[in-house]
Amino acid sequence: MASPVVGHLDPVFVNVMENIKRLLRIVFQTANEITFPVSGTGSSGMETALTNLIEDGDEVVVAIAGAFGERLADAAGRLGGQVHRVEAEWGRIVEPSRIEAALKAARKPKLVAVVHAETSTGMHQPVEELGAMAHRYGALILLDAVTSVGCVPVEIDRWGIDACYTCTQKGISAPPGLAPVTFSERAMQVVRSREKKSRSWYLDLAMIERYWGAERLYHHTAPITMNYALYEALRIVVEEGLTQRFARHQANATAMCAGLDAIGLKPVAQEGHRLPQLAVVTIPEGIDDAKVRSDLLRHFNIEIAGGLGPFKGKVWRIGLLGESSTRENVMMVLNALESVLSAQGLELARGAALKAADYAYSSMS
Amino acid sequence: MASPVVGHLDPVFVNVMENIKRLLRIVFQTANEITFPVSGTGSSGMETALTNLIEDGDEVVVAIAGAFGERLADAAGRLGGQVHRVEAEWGRIVEPSRIEAALKAARKPKLVAVVHAETSTGMHQPVEELGAMAHRYGALILLDAVTSVGCVPVEIDRWGIDACYTCTQKGISAPPGLAPVTFSERAMQVVRSREKKSRSWYLDLAMIERYWGAERLYHHTAPITMNYALYEALRIVVEEGLTQRFARHQANATAMCAGLDAIGLKPVAQEGHRLPQLAVVTIPEGIDDAKVRSDLLRHFNIEIAGGLGPFKGKVWRIGLLGESSTRENVMMVLNALESVLSAQGLELARGAALKAADYAYSSMS
Repeated sequence: MASPVVGHLDPVFVNVMENIKRLLRIVFQTANEITFPVSGTGSSGMETALTNLIEDGDEVVVAIAGAFGERLADAAGRLGGQVHRVEAEWGRIVEPSRIEAALKAARKPKLVAVVHAETSTGMHQPVEELGAMAHRYGALILLDAVTSVGCVPVEIDRWGIDACYTCTQKGISAPPGLAPVTFSERAMQVVRSREKKSRSWYLDLAMIERYWGAERLYHHTAPITMNYALYEALRIVVEEGLTQRFARHQANATAMCAGLDAIGLKPVAQEGHRLPQLAVVTIPEGIDDAKVRSDLLRHFNIEIAGGLGPFKGKVWRIGLLGESSTRENVMMVLNALESVLSAQGLELARGAALKAADYAYSSMS
Repeated sequence: MASPVVGHLDPVFVNVMENIKRLLRIVFQTANEITFPVSGTGSSGMETALTNLIEDGDEVVVAIAGAFGERLADAAGRLGGQVHRVEAEWGRIVEPSRIEAALKAARKPKLVAVVHAETSTGMHQPVEELGAMAHRYGALILLDAVTSVGCVPVEIDRWGIDACYTCTQKGISAPPGLAPVTFSERAMQVVRSREKKSRSWYLDLAMIERYWGAERLYHHTAPITMNYALYEALRIVVEEGLTQRFARHQANATAMCAGLDAIGLKPVAQEGHRLPQLAVVTIPEGIDDAKVRSDLLRHFNIEIAGGLGPFKGKVWRIGLLGESSTRENVMMVLNALESVLSAQGLELARGAALKAADYAYSSMS
C-alpha cells in the first residue's frame, strides 16, 4: 500500500485489475466473467447484489439465523423487495427444507439470499444444495460469503451460486476496504434486462462492468491502493493453496475448541455446523464481558469481539481468520483468556487450555 | 498506510476517527456535527447525500453543465427524485437566476444539487448565494465539492450549504477510497424525519451516525487503512493552512495558463469562472489526442486526462490538485507538452511555454 498511486485508467493499474479478477476467480472457484472488487467494504458487496438483482415488488426469500441474515432482509426490503423471512433460532442452521417451503409458497420468487458463515453465531450454513433448489423455482441464489471465502470452501460454480460477495479483511487478510463479488451469466441476464435502472448509481453493475471489462469506460475512481493490497493478499492465498488453507483453518479450530472447552467455554452454534474460522462461545455466569475484552486488549493486545443484538453481553466471538489462523495465535489467546478469566475468579486448572489444545494438535499429526 | 490494521472499534481507531472529524470540519469550514468520511470513493458521497435526503417523488433541482451535473441528475432520478434539469452549455456556469426560476416553477422543491468544480470542463460554479436562495424556497442545498475541497474556498457554514461531499484523492491528496461528507442540522432533521428508510443500507446516515458518533454502534467495518491515510493527509492540509493552499493553487494555475496559452492551448471554461486546480483546454486541430496522452505517460511519466462524453477527443484535462500543484510540475508538464506537440508537427517557438510561465511567476512576486 506504500506503492505510488497511479491513475485509475493507467496501464499499470489495468494490469493489477486483470490480475485481481483472475485471482478472485480462483478464490471463488468460478469461471464467471463478472468477478471484481466493489469499491466499498463487505456490506457494499451485499448492496451491489441486491440493488442490481431486485426491482420493486420482487419476492425475495431470506434465510435468517443471526445479525447478517437480518441485515440482508433489511437491505432487500429497502430496495423494494417483498421479503419472505425464513427464520431459525440464533446458533441453528436454516433447514434447507424450510427454504424450499418458502420458495413453494411464494408466487414468483426472484431471489433466495443466504448467509454462508453467520458471523454473529459462528454457524456454518449448508448451502451446497441451495443453488439447484432456487433454480427449480425459477429464482436466483445470492450467497453472503463475507466470513467464509478463504477459510472454508466456497464453490460458486459447483454449487450453482448466482451472486456472491465477500470482504477483504477476513479470509483474504488484506485491510478492509473492498468487497469482492462474482455474478453468474444467469444473474447478469437479469441485471441486463431490468425494467428500471438500479437504485444505486455507485453500485450499478451495468456501468461498473464497462470499467472493469475491456472497455475501460470511466465510472468512478477505483480505490487504487486498496486494490494493490487485495492483489498481494490474493497472491498469498493462492500461493498457500485453497486446500491447504482450509485444512489449516480446520486444524487450528479443532485445537482452539479443545482449549476453550477445557476452560468451560462452550460453542453457541449447533454441533456439526460450526465455523472453523470463528469460535462463538457463551460467556460464563458472573463474568464481566466488557472487562474481559478490555483486559485482553490492554494486557495482551488481543481483540475478541462481543455479541451482536440479542447476543450482546452473552457471547464472545474469537476469530481465527486467514493469516491470523495460526498455532501461535491459538496458544496466545487461550493463555490470555485463562489468565483473564482466573483473575475474575473463575476456578481453572492452570494450563488446562494449552494442554488440551496441544493434545489436539498432536492427535492430528 | 503501512501502519498495523486495528479493529474498527479499537480505541486507537476511535481516536483516529475523532481527529478526522475535527480536521474535516476545518477543511469544510463548518461546525456540523455530522462530518465524516463515507466508506467508498467520491461518488459514494454523492449517493449518500441523495439516498438520505430524497424520498420517492421529491422534486430535485439539478444544475447541469457537464458530466458531473449529469451524474447528479441520473443518481437523483434512480432514487425516486423528480428531477428538474437546469442546463447550461458545457464550459459555461449555470446562472443562479436560472436555478431560482426552476425553484419558483417547482411545486415543492426538496433539494437543489449543484457541482462546485465541474471536472469535465474546468468550470468554477458560483455558489455563495445558492444556500440562502434554496432556503427561501424551502429547499435544502447539496454541493458536489469533489474537485474543490482543498483547492479553492469551500465555506459550508458561511454559504449555508446543507450537504456536501468530496473525495480524498484530489485537493486533500490522499489515495482514493473515501468520500468525506458533511450535513447541516437542517439536513439531518430531514434525514431523521423520513417516511421510509433510505434505499441504501450501506449508506444510511441514521445508522452510520451511531457508529461515527459517541455510541460507536457497529454498522459496517470501516476501511481502517484508508482512514489512516486521510488522517495524515488532512494534517498536511491544515499544517499548510487553507489560505496558503488556495493561494498556491491560484499562483500555479496562473503560470500554467500563461504557459498553455503560449503554445496555443485555450481554456474551455468561461472567463472569470475557471478552476485553478484543473486546466481544461481545447485540443488543437490535427493533433492525435490518444497519442499525445500516451506519449506523455510513456516518455515523461505524466498522466493528463482526456475529455468525457461530448468532450471526448476534444479537450485535455490537466490537474494541478493538492500536493501536485507545484511550480516544478507546471514547468515539467509544459515542457513535456511542448515536446510532444512539436513532435506531432505543431509549430511552436522552442521554450515559449516555459518562458511565459516563468514570466507569470516573476510577475507575482
